[in-house]
Amino acid sequence: MPELRKDPIIGRWVIISTDRAKRPTDFVRDRITNKGGFCPFCYGNEAKTPPEVLAYRPGQNGNQSLRDTPGWTVRVVPNKFPALGIEGNLNRQAEGMFDKMNGLGAHEVIIETPDHNATLEQMPEKRIEDVLWAFRDRILDLKQDKRFKYILIFKNHGESAGASLEHPHSQLIATPIIPKRVQEELLGAREYYNYKERCVFCDIIRQEVNQGVRLISGNEDFVAIAPYAARFPFETWVLPKAHDPFFEDAQKHEYVSLSRIIRELLLRQEKVLTNPPYNLMIHNSPLRETDGRFYHWHIELLPKLTRVAGFEWGSGFYINPTPPEEAAKFLREVKV
Amino acid sequence: MPELRKDPIIGRWVIISTDRAKRPTDFVRDRITNKGGFCPFCYGNEAKTPPEVLAYRPGQNGNQSLRDTPGWTVRVVPNKFPALGIEGNLNRQAEGMFDKMNGLGAHEVIIETPDHNATLEQMPEKRIEDVLWAFRDRILDLKQDKRFKYILIFKNHGESAGASLEHPHSQLIATPIIPKRVQEELLGAREYYNYKERCVFCDIIRQEVNQGVRLISGNEDFVAIAPYAARFPFETWVLPKAHDPFFEDAQKHEYVSLSRIIRELLLRQEKVLTNPPYNLMIHNSPLRETDGRFYHWHIELLPKLTRVAGFEWGSGFYINPTPPEEAAKFLREVKV
Repeated sequence: MPELRKDPIIGRWVIISTDRAKRPTDFVRDRITNKGGFCPFCYGNEAKTPPEVLAYRPGQNGNQSLRDTPGWTVRVVPNKFPALGIEGNLNRQAEGMFDKMNGLGAHEVIIETPDHNATLEQMPEKRIEDVLWAFRDRILDLKQDKRFKYILIFKNHGESAGASLEHPHSQLIATPIIPKRVQEELLGAREYYNYKERCVFCDIIRQEVNQGVRLISGNEDFVAIAPYAARFPFETWVLPKAHDPFFEDAQKHEYVSLSRIIRELLLRQEKVLTNPPYNLMIHNSPLRETDGRFYHWHIELLPKLTRVAGFEWGSGFYINPTPPEEAAKFLREVKV
Repeated sequence: MPELRKDPIIGRWVIISTDRAKRPTDFVRDRITNKGGFCPFCYGNEAKTPPEVLAYRPGQNGNQSLRDTPGWTVRVVPNKFPALGIEGNLNRQAEGMFDKMNGLGAHEVIIETPDHNATLEQMPEKRIEDVLWAFRDRILDLKQDKRFKYILIFKNHGESAGASLEHPHSQLIATPIIPKRVQEELLGAREYYNYKERCVFCDIIRQEVNQGVRLISGNEDFVAIAPYAARFPFETWVLPKAHDPFFEDAQKHEYVSLSRIIRELLLRQEKVLTNPPYNLMIHNSPLRETDGRFYHWHIELLPKLTRVAGFEWGSGFYINPTPPEEAAKFLREVKV
């Protein structure tokens, strides 16, 4: 089982893989490995992944295909090489002055389509919506496991954004602790709420919609903006207009609107930046958060255009060479 | 002048370049641009950089070469395209609900050698020591400017670690605020000190030297370890054995020992990982920190072997595929 270790200075937990440790020569191979070759996510190769935990199989009246066979539109499987292990308990303990616990958690892969060569933005809106429903279904299922405190859903597209398989997929990691970055957001949002008695995200939406300069797109349920203090060029946030702490509590019409705006934003990004690698993350409340007033779930979309280097690693400070107002203008004005 | 903007949720400041904003098509060119071509850091091209702020010119008895001409061994110049501007004042102000200030600071380049094709580890120890003295001299000079609160010194080696010029160089950025990552370290170290009345870094050194499993190397003044909760494979920390909050307060014999251990660690890293790209950062106390008991300056050396992807960006949580004990064993046992 992997190990969770805590940095004794800043309190950041790190997952240390102990089972399949990478040796020095393994890193040169850390690339997309199946270009044009065998793909475990394609139809017919269902036996090459761990057994599915969820699949949408459209057939009707008993005509649905069988588990772990072709015929699905979205399929969710445990990651074959999980970052965290699903069995056991935390077993918190000291190692001298240090702190550790078992690397307990869930790590799943959401295979977004059977089409190896598709991209999310080329898929029909209904298929993107299905991917969102799969995210929701998996969160609701894993939420029942009281060992988990947080679920992060993310997508890496393109080799330099960290994707190691070409076939369109997202990932889900359930963790036994609330990650540091999430805690920082919660703390900041709570402090803002305590001071103003308003949600900081609701305030951002109001100001951005009024000003318009960092607005990229919007529909009846969502707004897409270039954030005021964007770390990265062309960074985009997608926020639900209605205050809601939990992604999984969204309504049917919101998943419909969300699939539409995600598709549109990816098309805009593709046109302006010529199919860039990107990371997409859902920022959600911790699973057992009871005070829903101050946090507002949202999506961050980060095209990978620059390199994070010594300055950023040493300071946590980012240099963004493209003002968000200009990024928003490019993304807003491109025809899609 | 660039702008500093604060994220209203987590309070992180970001530098937004406003003068020379990058447009979408500029990013494909974000690579090392002078391979085999013109290099502004080579002898004879001194006029192509801003005028030098420091240079070591070995000649004796008035035989030293003139400013901004060849003959130097280390040369420090303002960055031609600085991330922060040196003139003016902070002018803090609101922009609706947001907060900003002028992007005030210093951004300098330390040209480590006139030899375009050298690497730090191939240089004689005395030359590496000169680079460290240049770091110190620049910190002592910039420290007099009361507008600056922190100075970060870092080195990006190799294209995928963010280097944009081949010629061996480091960089220095002086900032008008204490960066978030530094504040976190200070806060954590202070809390540890308040609880234990000991420096957390001194405790780490003691435990690591006793246990030996994460020890990489050491000499009379420094110890090099793979940190217990390393974020990255083969991450290395170099710590002075004697407690000291400030890099610039080190003694002559410490700069000698440090140049020796840096050279040795880079050689070890090069042998084990076959000349990897890397980032090296000096973690130092804020310029005007008056309580020297809890923070302990050190160096982080991060070979760039993996990609930071959606999980890390979304959670601040890292997955390290190589346990630090194994990384330390490889680095410790390689012959250099």
